[in-house]
Amino acid sequence: MNIEKLLPSVLRHENIAHIEDDVLLIEDRRKLPFSREFYKAYDASDAACAIRMMVTQGGGPLETALQAMVLTARKCGKNMDELRKAGSLLSSARKTNTTMKREIAFLLEEFESIGSRNFADSVQELVNSRLEEYDEKYLAMAEYGCRLIKDGDGILTTCFPEHSFFLSLSLAREEGKKFTVYAQETRPYLQGAHLTAPSLAELSFDHYLITDNMTAFFISSGRVNIYMTASDLATKEKWVINKLGTLSSAIACHEYGVPYYAFSMGFDDSYSTLCEKEVEFRDPEEVKECQGIPVTGGDVRAIYPCFDVIAPEYVSAVITPDGSIS
Amino acid sequence: MNIEKLLPSVLRHENIAHIEDDVLLIEDRRKLPFSREFYKAYDASDAACAIRMMVTQGGGPLETALQAMVLTARKCGKNMDELRKAGSLLSSARKTNTTMKREIAFLLEEFESIGSRNFADSVQELVNSRLEEYDEKYLAMAEYGCRLIKDGDGILTTCFPEHSFFLSLSLAREEGKKFTVYAQETRPYLQGAHLTAPSLAELSFDHYLITDNMTAFFISSGRVNIYMTASDLATKEKWVINKLGTLSSAIACHEYGVPYYAFSMGFDDSYSTLCEKEVEFRDPEEVKECQGIPVTGGDVRAIYPCFDVIAPEYVSAVITPDGSIS
Repeated sequence: MNIEKLLPSVLRHENIAHIEDDVLLIEDRRKLPFSREFYKAYDASDAACAIRMMVTQGGGPLETALQAMVLTARKCGKNMDELRKAGSLLSSARKTNTTMKREIAFLLEEFESIGSRNFADSVQELVNSRLEEYDEKYLAMAEYGCRLIKDGDGILTTCFPEHSFFLSLSLAREEGKKFTVYAQETRPYLQGAHLTAPSLAELSFDHYLITDNMTAFFISSGRVNIYMTASDLATKEKWVINKLGTLSSAIACHEYGVPYYAFSMGFDDSYSTLCEKEVEFRDPEEVKECQGIPVTGGDVRAIYPCFDVIAPEYVSAVITPDGSIS
Repeated sequence: MNIEKLLPSVLRHENIAHIEDDVLLIEDRRKLPFSREFYKAYDASDAACAIRMMVTQGGGPLETALQAMVLTARKCGKNMDELRKAGSLLSSARKTNTTMKREIAFLLEEFESIGSRNFADSVQELVNSRLEEYDEKYLAMAEYGCRLIKDGDGILTTCFPEHSFFLSLSLAREEGKKFTVYAQETRPYLQGAHLTAPSLAELSFDHYLITDNMTAFFISSGRVNIYMTASDLATKEKWVINKLGTLSSAIACHEYGVPYYAFSMGFDDSYSTLCEKEVEFRDPEEVKECQGIPVTGGDVRAIYPCFDVIAPEYVSAVITPDGSIS
């Protein structure tokens, strides 16, 4: 099944990252929704930079890294030293993205058994088939997600909830279900305002953009009755790490009997419980501005932990391509 | 006791509103902290406009209205028609501010028994004594608030928490207590970023400005162990209406055993329970921008309920000048 038509443009392969004339073009999500621009990466090191600088985020770095490996293969052929160097640069560009890291390690292993002749074409083929597999995984999660959505639901989400969420909505609509999505703007980086709400508008889903402090209002008043997000990390024990604001919302949902579901490509076995120590603190100056414009005075101090750790009691289920743990 | 030196400049009488050469100068809080400007009101109708346009907010409209009544007395003498017209314009400028409404009604009644000779001076005297009474009430609440703050506390607040909060902090510091304040920025209007955090910095209180979605992070990690806000409305049954974000924070506090205290000048007897119906919805365009700069695309729909209704189970106590109800 071709899932592209069920997705907003920002999530289509050709926009996330594609190669044109030996240049990797990565859609610059930092400019969305105000302008559509492509960042040009000439090699894996450029692509790693783009990931570091948040040109792409969420599931974007995974596809970008895969295509950057194709680009390296095109430029260097089967030069395992160069390929490993590229893989290492990409893997370290977004430390929290363990799926990307695992995928690069898998590719490098596969490369060993590919012949040198037409190496780049074989790599492209391999990457294409991997992307197809990911599409199938997104779809598997979305089929599960779609079943959870009831006609008339108010669906809350945080940050940019990625493929599985938008596919869940598209499938639910195909089944004739009506629903309204409440998208948190997700300060300070505003992924909800920049990516999620415009994607909902593009696909003509009934929606509201809300500020981050509104979730309890809509949960307590009964307008929100299901909460769904992507996740940066999930464990078999149902601990979830996701963008700031998820914990506040999940606690309010728990209090009012609203279920919270997190989509995850797979469990991370390196953790069993999670705690605040896993959370990265970023530059507090980002809290003191909004889209580059200062929101406060110079003497003010700020602080910026950028993820929430959500304990299992607030998570109704983690949905993976292989089913859900609840 | 002169409380002025314990307050940030934005809360000092001369800055909230004062008369100079028959013009009422109201500090324009919309420009803070980027510039300090005074809005000039030439009569009560101007002053009502200023209140409507959010030139001043929180406790500001009360003092502005009192001074606007003095200005009217100066200009019109004991002309009860003019005074009643002024009172009516001011009362309707901020419907949720029931303290202002009650105070204006009280003044109009008092005016009847004041002689026409030197009427304006007598009104100024009356207003000054009312302001002193309010200062004493703020101080009474703050003495209670100060007792609730323990050495080493992390204190969360939302929006601009007004006199009683800052006085509580000042008194606690005088007693040698150390603490850190976490101030929510309070989107979309950013009262926390514009007023609260700069006031904390001005008074050299240890503080952090945080985005609205961070509260559960700091509550769950044990850094916040007391939550204090002002309130727009409180009832004897401990229902509270306060700025958006208060409910999310209060629920998370409740979940982690952190007490939530709301300051209130007095209970509103016209309600026993409160519900969402009491909440004003404002122009959703305000959610789609931040300080006048768009944060999202044109097709996106937004929604803007501007208060939270907090049920009694999430309120540890409402602190009034006469004590607390818990």
